[in-house]
Amino acid sequence: MVKAPWQDVAQIAQDLRAKSIADIKPAIPDVPSHAEIPLNTTSIPRKLLGEAELNITESPPEELLRSLASGQLSSVEVVTAFLRRAGIAQTLANCVTEVLPKAAIERATYLDEYLKTNKKPIGPLHGLPISVKEHIGMKGLGLNGGFVSWWDHVGKEDAHIIQLLQNAGCVLYVRTTQPQCLMHLETANNLYGVTVNPYNRNLTSGGSSGGEGVLIALKGSCLGIGTDIGGSIRAPSANNGIWGFKPTSYRLPMGGMTAPMAGSEQIVAVVGPMSASFEGCHVFMKTLIDQKPWLTDPALLPMPWTYPPKESYLTKPDGEKKLKIGIIWSDGVVKPHPPVIRAIQDLTAKLKSIPEVELVDWKPYKHDLAWDVISALYFCDGAKQEKEALASSGEPWLPLTEFIIKEQPQVPDREFTISEVWQRTVKRDEYRKEYAKAWTETAQDGYPVDVILCPVGPGAAPPLNQSRYWGYTAQWNLLDYPAMIFPVTQLDPKKDPVETGYQPLNAKDEFNYKLYEPEKYVDAPVSLQLVGRRYDDEKVFEAMEFIQKSVGHLPLESFK
Amino acid sequence: MVKAPWQDVAQIAQDLRAKSIADIKPAIPDVPSHAEIPLNTTSIPRKLLGEAELNITESPPEELLRSLASGQLSSVEVVTAFLRRAGIAQTLANCVTEVLPKAAIERATYLDEYLKTNKKPIGPLHGLPISVKEHIGMKGLGLNGGFVSWWDHVGKEDAHIIQLLQNAGCVLYVRTTQPQCLMHLETANNLYGVTVNPYNRNLTSGGSSGGEGVLIALKGSCLGIGTDIGGSIRAPSANNGIWGFKPTSYRLPMGGMTAPMAGSEQIVAVVGPMSASFEGCHVFMKTLIDQKPWLTDPALLPMPWTYPPKESYLTKPDGEKKLKIGIIWSDGVVKPHPPVIRAIQDLTAKLKSIPEVELVDWKPYKHDLAWDVISALYFCDGAKQEKEALASSGEPWLPLTEFIIKEQPQVPDREFTISEVWQRTVKRDEYRKEYAKAWTETAQDGYPVDVILCPVGPGAAPPLNQSRYWGYTAQWNLLDYPAMIFPVTQLDPKKDPVETGYQPLNAKDEFNYKLYEPEKYVDAPVSLQLVGRRYDDEKVFEAMEFIQKSVGHLPLESFK
Repeated sequence: MVKAPWQDVAQIAQDLRAKSIADIKPAIPDVPSHAEIPLNTTSIPRKLLGEAELNITESPPEELLRSLASGQLSSVEVVTAFLRRAGIAQTLANCVTEVLPKAAIERATYLDEYLKTNKKPIGPLHGLPISVKEHIGMKGLGLNGGFVSWWDHVGKEDAHIIQLLQNAGCVLYVRTTQPQCLMHLETANNLYGVTVNPYNRNLTSGGSSGGEGVLIALKGSCLGIGTDIGGSIRAPSANNGIWGFKPTSYRLPMGGMTAPMAGSEQIVAVVGPMSASFEGCHVFMKTLIDQKPWLTDPALLPMPWTYPPKESYLTKPDGEKKLKIGIIWSDGVVKPHPPVIRAIQDLTAKLKSIPEVELVDWKPYKHDLAWDVISALYFCDGAKQEKEALASSGEPWLPLTEFIIKEQPQVPDREFTISEVWQRTVKRDEYRKEYAKAWTETAQDGYPVDVILCPVGPGAAPPLNQSRYWGYTAQWNLLDYPAMIFPVTQLDPKKDPVETGYQPLNAKDEFNYKLYEPEKYVDAPVSLQLVGRRYDDEKVFEAMEFIQKSVGHLPLESFK
Repeated sequence: MVKAPWQDVAQIAQDLRAKSIADIKPAIPDVPSHAEIPLNTTSIPRKLLGEAELNITESPPEELLRSLASGQLSSVEVVTAFLRRAGIAQTLANCVTEVLPKAAIERATYLDEYLKTNKKPIGPLHGLPISVKEHIGMKGLGLNGGFVSWWDHVGKEDAHIIQLLQNAGCVLYVRTTQPQCLMHLETANNLYGVTVNPYNRNLTSGGSSGGEGVLIALKGSCLGIGTDIGGSIRAPSANNGIWGFKPTSYRLPMGGMTAPMAGSEQIVAVVGPMSASFEGCHVFMKTLIDQKPWLTDPALLPMPWTYPPKESYLTKPDGEKKLKIGIIWSDGVVKPHPPVIRAIQDLTAKLKSIPEVELVDWKPYKHDLAWDVISALYFCDGAKQEKEALASSGEPWLPLTEFIIKEQPQVPDREFTISEVWQRTVKRDEYRKEYAKAWTETAQDGYPVDVILCPVGPGAAPPLNQSRYWGYTAQWNLLDYPAMIFPVTQLDPKKDPVETGYQPLNAKDEFNYKLYEPEKYVDAPVSLQLVGRRYDDEKVFEAMEFIQKSVGHLPLESFK
């Protein structure tokens, strides 16, 4: 336990980070201060790096992997470019906890030599730099999980997922920010401050994997590791216009991560990819699952990764390949802001012309009840661990920590009894069965819906501390459904005016409605979510690729 | 909640049972009293039934299914024969809670007509009678779970598994006994008394699915449904010399069963088949999983049933089909009695001559720790529900209820806190990983062990109230490994003398050692257990069939 005043610890943390960035060679160029640049910082790195570095960092991971495997690019070149761009991204958006230039260049050098000697890559991720959310353990490195008092925790060994990614040949070079207690849909803590949105510094990065989201949006990484128990991969993927995938539970290994609530099984956190591309998400899933991690961690399911499938998951009983999509325009609790509705309209307008696609409206089944169920099950111990971890350093509670622990009616202010947990677990299972029934019943007009297309949140990235509606993401954690995030468009106040005269349905809806002032959201990415039934992870990938091919390109227009 | 004195309720229960048996047509023959027959009652039914009925009831389920599907036997004939033999079995061993002659014959009549009209069976279980452990809900029928105070609980609808078996064409005709609170490896409760072993009335049936075990051994059923959270399918299968299979969790649906601890997830109960034959277990698994129950109950895994496999699970990297078996002679805590050792010796002596079989000794990894972990996690609420259910009727605690709730050092006498449960869950997961590592390390001399061959308990069925060591079965619940029980031999005092001069390792071992007096165990079936890694259910089936073919027949000699 750290004994120093929390402000001193924060200073130590930030100094260590600064020093790690100073160790990058060649040194990163001077980055202009916020006063000198626009709110949208995404164009800045392009002004600071050379052409070769830009070519590398703006290539999607699948291209880099080909160049690395063939020796066209060396891992040292690639890692150096990403290290330097990560350093710039940190200065622009505060998304990094530390860079690891020494270890990364050593590893890259080893891999380059391996390729020269053996004339073949060491594995499917040969030489590729991968970014890592801080609470995913790395041997000998800090592991604070967003708490000042956990500052001196150190990873005893690499997390299981880190081991597998390294087996496959990746290079670890940067660790990224997360919020206090890991339970915000934004990213701010008392060690490092606030991680901001690179498209608009006044907006949130999303969270809890906000560092990843921002770093990838700023091309300081092309593939990173996030975690998600209520939206933590998906909110920052959406807010930053990148790709992200939350798998079904127990498909990827969670061993070696630090977080409160270890041992809780009512709602299960998952780890998953965040990437500049769809293919990045795919190579991540495939590389991990192909290593049969269930032989080491028997909590995992021995399901091979079957995308692309031998036989299409979309083939209907009549032998035709068709994609039936259920669309959620609003979950019936909080209506999304106009840009989200426009994203669904723009995308479905294009899909309507595809004969193999069928679109139906999905009637959300009691999504308000879902939040009651899940919010209580998050904190069966009354957030005892979080409260203790905060109290022991004296660091202030951040507003969104207050929000999720103290302002949710179902979150208990004491430990539940075992009987209370069991009763609520039974309710969870009943709700899951009811939702499964609703899904099966969509077969009444032919065959069941394959996937659901829906918002990722009630709007694009909001101003700081306003991410107060989890329903659009936590819904799928409660149901344990796989979900992919993809970019569709960018917010434009001209195209996305306030819906005048709207009568909010309830207090949450009113809060969200009033939150929307288009001018404040300029340039915010607008993303959507594709959701499958539990364990239909590969089907979601196939449906996503089908949609992407059908509409030509995602996002529908290039981001500025 | 029942208000009458518990003795009155028990009388009502027994009267109702007697009346249901009296409704069987033709009426069952008079069964001799215990004073008139030997301890081994298994030959009695043969003296009381006609040849046609004997042919039916002594056929394994796979043969009956063929005859029923072809119309060679009518379902009414088959069901009538099993109803009558079940009535006899009840009189001999007290294994039934009620028979359902009216509903069963109506259903069988319908199925016979269906076959005549449609010239094909209604499903893969067409016309086959299946027996059901009482706590598995049936619409409109009682559902007491072994508690007097739950006597007036009634099934609101058929349990999910019942629905699926009925979809497949089975006939439900009898419900079977279970112990007080469902947590004994024997079968006694204050509603119905003690279910005894048909091979030796002085010995226990095993439990908690003891009614099933006995009924099937007495050929009053050929296929039944048991449940298992610590050995409840396997102990009674072993004690009664029948086949039983405990699947990995979440492969078969648990919805609609009644038991304390609903909502607990630390240690998960499973449902599975108990049968007169290996094929009976197989058809049960296949029929259920082929119906994709996960579409209704999303807790279930969408894994198809893949036995017989397209490609053998036993094929080694060099392309050869080989079966490597790890043998547990003793778990290092309690050494099994001589007949169990002899069963392993007899079986492995035969297997040694098979070139495709490799036998290695398995070193049990901390099985004593395993019991500490699982016994605590069974009762995270300090057995609150059990204590309340017992107190509210005033029924006496039975000795084995005392044993499991009050005499286990790790079972708390109060509710755990949430933090305590989480800590113990983390320990559970660590242990599971360590065991997986031990399994993987058996590859050091070639390839890893395919299955473990081990005892089912520290002896054959003991005298009543002495089933006080769960280690050989609960071990695989903690690890959630699939396990099959099969008959090997029968206890013979001449072949199985006491091991003189043995020095017990500890108090439990001493208790077990002193328990063994061969003369008291005459005729007890001796069975063994075949265990696979988590989710290797189909591999266990394949290995079992391979063993069965290799040794010619199981049990190795016919039972008397």
